[in-house]
Amino acid sequence: MEFSDLHRQIEFIREVDKLKYILRKTKLFNSNRNENDAEHSWHLSLMAIVLADHANFEIDLLKVIKMLLIHDIVEIDAGDTFIYDTEKNHDNTVEEREAARRIFGILPEHQATELIAVWEEFEEQQTNEAKFARAMDRLEPLLQNTSNQGGTWNEFGVNYDKVYSKKKVIKNGSETIWKFAEQLIHESVANGILKK
Amino acid sequence: MEFSDLHRQIEFIREVDKLKYILRKTKLFNSNRNENDAEHSWHLSLMAIVLADHANFEIDLLKVIKMLLIHDIVEIDAGDTFIYDTEKNHDNTVEEREAARRIFGILPEHQATELIAVWEEFEEQQTNEAKFARAMDRLEPLLQNTSNQGGTWNEFGVNYDKVYSKKKVIKNGSETIWKFAEQLIHESVANGILKK
Repeated sequence: MEFSDLHRQIEFIREVDKLKYILRKTKLFNSNRNENDAEHSWHLSLMAIVLADHANFEIDLLKVIKMLLIHDIVEIDAGDTFIYDTEKNHDNTVEEREAARRIFGILPEHQATELIAVWEEFEEQQTNEAKFARAMDRLEPLLQNTSNQGGTWNEFGVNYDKVYSKKKVIKNGSETIWKFAEQLIHESVANGILKK
Repeated sequence: MEFSDLHRQIEFIREVDKLKYILRKTKLFNSNRNENDAEHSWHLSLMAIVLADHANFEIDLLKVIKMLLIHDIVEIDAGDTFIYDTEKNHDNTVEEREAARRIFGILPEHQATELIAVWEEFEEQQTNEAKFARAMDRLEPLLQNTSNQGGTWNEFGVNYDKVYSKKKVIKNGSETIWKFAEQLIHESVANGILKK
């Protein structure tokens, strides 16, 4: 590791500060304040630590956390895409791939290669780690929306079918967490905060 | 792992959302906006990933990241203490210990025990992981203040001696990063953004 590597790493550390300005549609728990991507990434990483034992399989927790810490960094260039947006596919657009190359490319080459691969692994959803990480990413806004009288569901007219369809991938990461999440979705319908 | 464990974990996940409201004295890079503890914890965790190879010793990176993700959670109850505060010792006050017991105590017992131990390990600064994690915690505000024409140094009249004395613990985690940090401190004096 050379001193010039350190300068590239410091440059990357400065650059990713911008993630703190990327606002998500979802609001903090019991709040009207939008969450930003840095807060979101922190929360998911901590969730992975406390929920890891519920995974359907053995997972490399460090890999999961790496995924969660960096999964939204491409949004510095590409912006946040709302999961229920019908016009734009959230996953792995050309814009996001370019962003990954630019931002991770600030790092020394071996690290850029590693982190781009970790980000792609998350997006491709084939490995156990990617599935468990995605489960965290789907669970947090469910907890937020149910604490906010429906939150983005009501704000953007998202109904039960759309929510159920987006959330059911939680099952791929954890059957136990999905059982809990499914119950929360049904309760939300019963409470009138999610429309059938 | 029982279903009731999951409910305690979800309760913990809701509770720690409050970290997003705890504002630090330091501002974001090139900005006037205060950083909050969740953003800070995310940034340090990502820094640990990209800077790990500069550690003075082999480190358990997962342990370091756990430390960094949770190191400020006690501030939900105890509040942020400014590092250059002369009246209050930042580390491990009675208030912070009580906060650790209450907040981590929401989790199932084995996890509460583990995370309190991780938090104490960070505070006690005896292990390699704790030293490297602390180096991250000291480096980030140095990068922020130098990007903000002195930032909190000028705002609160903090001089070179105090900064040098607080930052030099970076050396315990990484000689390489300390060499870089020391140079940054000296440049700050030369540039007039840090008073001798």
